[in-house]
Amino acid sequence: MTMRIAILGAGPSGLAQLRAFESARRGGAEVPEIVCFEKQSDLGGMWNYTWRTGLDAYGEPVHGSMYRYLWSNGPKEALEFADYSFEEHFGRPIASYPPRAVLRDYIMGRIEKSGVRDQIRFNMAVQWVDYSEETERFTVTVRDLKKDELLTEEFDRVIVATGHFSTPNAPFFEGVDRFPGRVLHAHDFRDACEFADKDLLLVGASYSAEDIGTQCYKYGARSVTFSYRSAPTGYDWPAAFEEKPLLQRVEGTTAHFIDGSSKQVDAIVLCTGYQHHFPFLPDALTLRTRNRLYPGDLYKGVFWIDNPKLIYLGMQDQYYTFNMFDAQAWYARDVILGKIALPSADAMRVDSTAWLAREEATTSAEQDIDFQTEYVRDLLDATDYPDFNVEAVATLFKQWKHDKKDDILGYRNYSYRSVLTGTLAPLHHTPWMQAMDDSLEAFLADSELEPQERLIA
Amino acid sequence: MTMRIAILGAGPSGLAQLRAFESARRGGAEVPEIVCFEKQSDLGGMWNYTWRTGLDAYGEPVHGSMYRYLWSNGPKEALEFADYSFEEHFGRPIASYPPRAVLRDYIMGRIEKSGVRDQIRFNMAVQWVDYSEETERFTVTVRDLKKDELLTEEFDRVIVATGHFSTPNAPFFEGVDRFPGRVLHAHDFRDACEFADKDLLLVGASYSAEDIGTQCYKYGARSVTFSYRSAPTGYDWPAAFEEKPLLQRVEGTTAHFIDGSSKQVDAIVLCTGYQHHFPFLPDALTLRTRNRLYPGDLYKGVFWIDNPKLIYLGMQDQYYTFNMFDAQAWYARDVILGKIALPSADAMRVDSTAWLAREEATTSAEQDIDFQTEYVRDLLDATDYPDFNVEAVATLFKQWKHDKKDDILGYRNYSYRSVLTGTLAPLHHTPWMQAMDDSLEAFLADSELEPQERLIA
Repeated sequence: MTMRIAILGAGPSGLAQLRAFESARRGGAEVPEIVCFEKQSDLGGMWNYTWRTGLDAYGEPVHGSMYRYLWSNGPKEALEFADYSFEEHFGRPIASYPPRAVLRDYIMGRIEKSGVRDQIRFNMAVQWVDYSEETERFTVTVRDLKKDELLTEEFDRVIVATGHFSTPNAPFFEGVDRFPGRVLHAHDFRDACEFADKDLLLVGASYSAEDIGTQCYKYGARSVTFSYRSAPTGYDWPAAFEEKPLLQRVEGTTAHFIDGSSKQVDAIVLCTGYQHHFPFLPDALTLRTRNRLYPGDLYKGVFWIDNPKLIYLGMQDQYYTFNMFDAQAWYARDVILGKIALPSADAMRVDSTAWLAREEATTSAEQDIDFQTEYVRDLLDATDYPDFNVEAVATLFKQWKHDKKDDILGYRNYSYRSVLTGTLAPLHHTPWMQAMDDSLEAFLADSELEPQERLIA
Repeated sequence: MTMRIAILGAGPSGLAQLRAFESARRGGAEVPEIVCFEKQSDLGGMWNYTWRTGLDAYGEPVHGSMYRYLWSNGPKEALEFADYSFEEHFGRPIASYPPRAVLRDYIMGRIEKSGVRDQIRFNMAVQWVDYSEETERFTVTVRDLKKDELLTEEFDRVIVATGHFSTPNAPFFEGVDRFPGRVLHAHDFRDACEFADKDLLLVGASYSAEDIGTQCYKYGARSVTFSYRSAPTGYDWPAAFEEKPLLQRVEGTTAHFIDGSSKQVDAIVLCTGYQHHFPFLPDALTLRTRNRLYPGDLYKGVFWIDNPKLIYLGMQDQYYTFNMFDAQAWYARDVILGKIALPSADAMRVDSTAWLAREEATTSAEQDIDFQTEYVRDLLDATDYPDFNVEAVATLFKQWKHDKKDDILGYRNYSYRSVLTGTLAPLHHTPWMQAMDDSLEAFLADSELEPQERLIA
């Protein structure tokens, strides 16, 4: 009987897994039968945009946290697939910080060229997964959303690639239930124009707050106030921005902060992160973790140690994204194909514990970058995924950190060098703060600007 | 072995079922063991208010479609519990159109006096229900949200009381995905103040559109445009309101309607109804129906004909609400207790089909009211639920319809007579359009106005 694999989700992680097997098949390997179940009507995961919030057309929770006018907040050179460069996809070099549509086009392009689309069943929401110790197989129950029918099939492996930026973590603050204006989580943020001429409060000081705040400012918000729990973002914000310690309570339209200060605001966006959420898994198979660089209970960051037939992709907090998912998927593939043998459960746990300890010992963003670089390097060295200069990517991340510090509203105007092609990206034709059109067509219009390499000052 | 009953949901329907059994127990009957699973942290179902939209603190879909400043849109005399009058609860007569907090207080009061709260397990989301032909029992799997653990228990009966105004029906209209403002379903509407000074488009012409539109106008919206599919609301709206045929597409902030007209709008609220949605049920047990007065496949509007151990409460489109849920719950109770015998499946289907045919033959709102009146009467006559003058309630509904037609922004200022106590409700101290404070305290403040009975003109 042919081995059957279920991949849950056709976003960047799930697609990496499809591509990994396809690459083996083209290399002559016999590969298992693969079924990828995707709740949305197209591939791309978070890189799709939907106007919907809350529940989708079928009553399923909306996966997407994507908003309009989103541009990559890291250089594309840091997430480039090692087996499919941006230059290959677009036929020429492009600028370092593409908007959503451009990144989605790139992700889709690799997949369409792989011809794996027919392995994906769209509009299929995973309802329940169970594992039988007797048969050593999984039963996967999915809802065919268009037919409104449940289907159950058996699989030998299940690969959870459902992401972890879909289920809001939204704490309650006293008075938000009586705030006379909109209170939303970043997950439900869609269009910055809604907040033009408004005084916005963003609770949080991480990527969501920083990016939604700058978007709203770019599209006309009157002021942006960040409220931080641990530490301010520390960026050199223009005068319309303000950083406050944690929100204590809301009274009418007045937000009160724990330092006793207050601010009148028109809308509140909770940029308070996401929960790892797997409502379709039994307790014994459920990864429980905060967002961290090395979630526990996963060997090599992917194999569920208690039952390594269950694999989680991309569940880490991420500096590396697409290329890390690839490294994970290639490794998972080689274990499934028997090219790599897994050690004993005990040995896996020892290994995982050692990585966890190393993660916990890091004390700076630079060390975090180095930690994840070593993790990716470890995976890469074990498979035939095209080797790439991960260490050079680490340098890009450090440069990027530096550039953000240097100019939080302008860092997207900078250029970086691809570690694959050696090409220095061209400058975009329009400074980001003036680039209101985020379409692929506008982005790809010719630039006459000379690129300028960034080197940590 | 004691019979075990699971009630899914502690809103008005589920609470009616608890109260029905408690009433039998106090009357000396031996009643089954009852467990009511409630996803929210308190009872009241839709009558709770939550500031959250989309997903709740645990990643579960938010049940509530309740918004701030909601006042009953029908006279309280039409929904009064026959075994617990408003006068009994509040100790004196109150006005006919109470705000949310007052209705919730009334619902809760009856339940707290029944002492059935300990039969409810809060923060428990039903994940999956299955039925075994062998054991003739149901397995009910729920997620203990606070512990994040799944629990499975067996039951002899399952009563689905999860409501059908929680899962949005939200059609796509061309261009809404690029609309530079907020697009939301009525389910996510929370606070009208968000729309002060805005030009609002409400797609729909039924209760949600009508009520959200008037709320927003009351709290400062600049204009309200309704877009209807079948027919305009037909009310005599003030100049700030406009009725348009169906939305065809949106371009920028311009809404285009199928008659070729257009309107600039700042926000779009889809008041396009809800789906009956039971993702926790296998296909063979799932009620599939549009919102109608007599859903198919249910004997007496409650028993799942293919397996009448499964009971659905309150799945009808509703003129009658709380009192109809009571009538259903008492009937269901008496069948479970063996006081009423169910006929054969064939006979149940014949009966249900006859009601369906009658429903389909109705051609006016008055006939719909009469139809549901006869349905409630049919249930009432079979149990010891306190008889009440349903036919007089039907007259109230017709009066209410007339009063809305008469004065869509003022009908809530009118008084109706309780069919239980015979009391004519006092007038509220403040005309509804000026009553900005919707708290229980403000509502219960003394009125010095003389009530005036409404009689269809």
